[in-house]
Amino acid sequence: MRLIHESAVAHIAMGAAVLGTGGGGDPLVGRLAAEAAIRERGPVRLIDVDEVPGDAWVVPSFRIGAPTVGIEKLFSWRELDDSFDDMEAALKARAHATMAIEIGGKNALLPIVIAARRGIALVNADAMGRAFPGSQMVSFCVHGIPARLATLADEKGNRIVMYPSSGAWQETLARPVVERMGASAMMCAFPVTGEELRRSAIAGSVERAERIGRALMEPSVHGGEPMKALTAETGARRIIRGKLVELDRRTVGGFARGSATFEGIDADQGRRVVILFQNEYLLALEAGSPRAMTPDLIAILDRETARPLMTEGLRYGARADVIAFACDPVWRTPAGLGIVGPRNFDYDTDYIPVEMLLPKHS
Amino acid sequence: MRLIHESAVAHIAMGAAVLGTGGGGDPLVGRLAAEAAIRERGPVRLIDVDEVPGDAWVVPSFRIGAPTVGIEKLFSWRELDDSFDDMEAALKARAHATMAIEIGGKNALLPIVIAARRGIALVNADAMGRAFPGSQMVSFCVHGIPARLATLADEKGNRIVMYPSSGAWQETLARPVVERMGASAMMCAFPVTGEELRRSAIAGSVERAERIGRALMEPSVHGGEPMKALTAETGARRIIRGKLVELDRRTVGGFARGSATFEGIDADQGRRVVILFQNEYLLALEAGSPRAMTPDLIAILDRETARPLMTEGLRYGARADVIAFACDPVWRTPAGLGIVGPRNFDYDTDYIPVEMLLPKHS
Repeated sequence: MRLIHESAVAHIAMGAAVLGTGGGGDPLVGRLAAEAAIRERGPVRLIDVDEVPGDAWVVPSFRIGAPTVGIEKLFSWRELDDSFDDMEAALKARAHATMAIEIGGKNALLPIVIAARRGIALVNADAMGRAFPGSQMVSFCVHGIPARLATLADEKGNRIVMYPSSGAWQETLARPVVERMGASAMMCAFPVTGEELRRSAIAGSVERAERIGRALMEPSVHGGEPMKALTAETGARRIIRGKLVELDRRTVGGFARGSATFEGIDADQGRRVVILFQNEYLLALEAGSPRAMTPDLIAILDRETARPLMTEGLRYGARADVIAFACDPVWRTPAGLGIVGPRNFDYDTDYIPVEMLLPKHS
Repeated sequence: MRLIHESAVAHIAMGAAVLGTGGGGDPLVGRLAAEAAIRERGPVRLIDVDEVPGDAWVVPSFRIGAPTVGIEKLFSWRELDDSFDDMEAALKARAHATMAIEIGGKNALLPIVIAARRGIALVNADAMGRAFPGSQMVSFCVHGIPARLATLADEKGNRIVMYPSSGAWQETLARPVVERMGASAMMCAFPVTGEELRRSAIAGSVERAERIGRALMEPSVHGGEPMKALTAETGARRIIRGKLVELDRRTVGGFARGSATFEGIDADQGRRVVILFQNEYLLALEAGSPRAMTPDLIAILDRETARPLMTEGLRYGARADVIAFACDPVWRTPAGLGIVGPRNFDYDTDYIPVEMLLPKHS
């Protein structure tokens, strides 16, 4: 156990922006809410998966919807409280801790808010090791943990408790509800016992985000070369250094979908890479051939500041380094690829690991 | 209190087909299920609204979705039981009785199945006095009863408990879920106490449906003139005697929508009436002018058998009498018309009562 003080939040938020691979919602909103919650209620206890009693409940809490909407439609305390209260009522038990379902974007930060408000611990883990657009795209499903219960709440006081027959059905039934709620809502899903958590969660995620954030933000860590420090931390390889010359972004079916095209600059002059996204950056193509793909992580970092750009923050003319690095091993199993491989997003390609697509020192 | 025996079900089903105004689902499925349930579990107790204790819960149970789908996708016992079990669990109380939310189509019959299976009473009432396409189009809303709780279940084991902030939100959030569940699901909604029931339900509906059914089916009642007997029972007036010459029917957004055009025959030769429907027949137009409209009831009866035709049973060439009669007075209030008046279905006309649109002896 350690404490998360207000000062750690900015680092976690920055790491979550990288691990969000463009999605998960702008971490700034989550950062401000987490800092305010800690100021008001005190530091949050961060516990490792081994510290949770085997029969205690851990409840992942997160925001679901289109990030493009999320930046305009803030959340209310009411939604946070309602969705968690309903989960505890349905479980007929108090939660021992909360956790991030995804360690990307603002959903890496909101559990800090929940933990502070409710006086419960935060588990140093998540269920994606990044961000994904579907609430069923979790390591829990790879390990056969049932989608037994999920709750949804909006700022208008609408509340929904779901008992889905599978993770896929949870997503199928929740997504249109979220759309009607205004394309953005609070959700709790996949409550797991400590025993289930230990065998199915991706451990250490919060501190990994924090390390990545420090690598990008702290001169004492990066020594003036944040991109190099990030590479050392993640093993990231560069796809292209380019300028954003085409942007197609729509909010469809509760998702932000589209593509961003980069034309190479500097040493990459003459090259052209297209990044396809569905909330998250999922596929990088060059002349029709993949350069990186889901479930590996693709991030777009501002050329000057090395700060990650989210899908909703992409702007024509932006100069950026597009990088990619390996996902958690759980996603490279057949069961993992069956949930988050490229074909799950309607991309007509088999999965090829990023290490095979990008030469080591690009 | 009286008992509903197997022999009464056919009459109720026939009356429900008339009161369904084309919607509510083919009563045949509900009739067969109700007859089987009574055979297996014994007759059902039918109680009047005055017989329910003031603080006891009455739970309306019904099928929601597109009737066009409902005739192909039958319901399972599991859905019936799940949706009602979840409602009682959320209420933290057993239901004293069930009731029809609408006395039209198969939804007039399913509560008989529920009552028989669970050994509870059926209330001689409904909340529409007919069928309507929206789950929020209930007399409860006119009287300010809150939409506090609703449950949904499908045959795959998916279960949803909703706490909507209003009747309109209940419908908004439930409809897309039903669509994903396969455009047909079991629902319980608007649980009411005995006290609320007495001031907001439409009393006597089950026996009204039974009387209408007997008027159409029993020679001892109609004396060979079923249409005349129906007119005597309902005050119905004829819009046109015609042949169905055009039919446009689509299943859109969980609804069966479209229009049916009748060309006059016999004395109505040369006339042409268009019936617009959204699950239910909602507006009759002749040369662009309304002849009858929601919330008044429109029914289409086979010319030979006087049996009502549902929207999903309409066939090109069908010869029929199109009739209309007055709705329950609750719907003619400003609050009632605010929920089920023609503008709620995007028809650009103010409500005009059927008595003003159709001459008495047509």
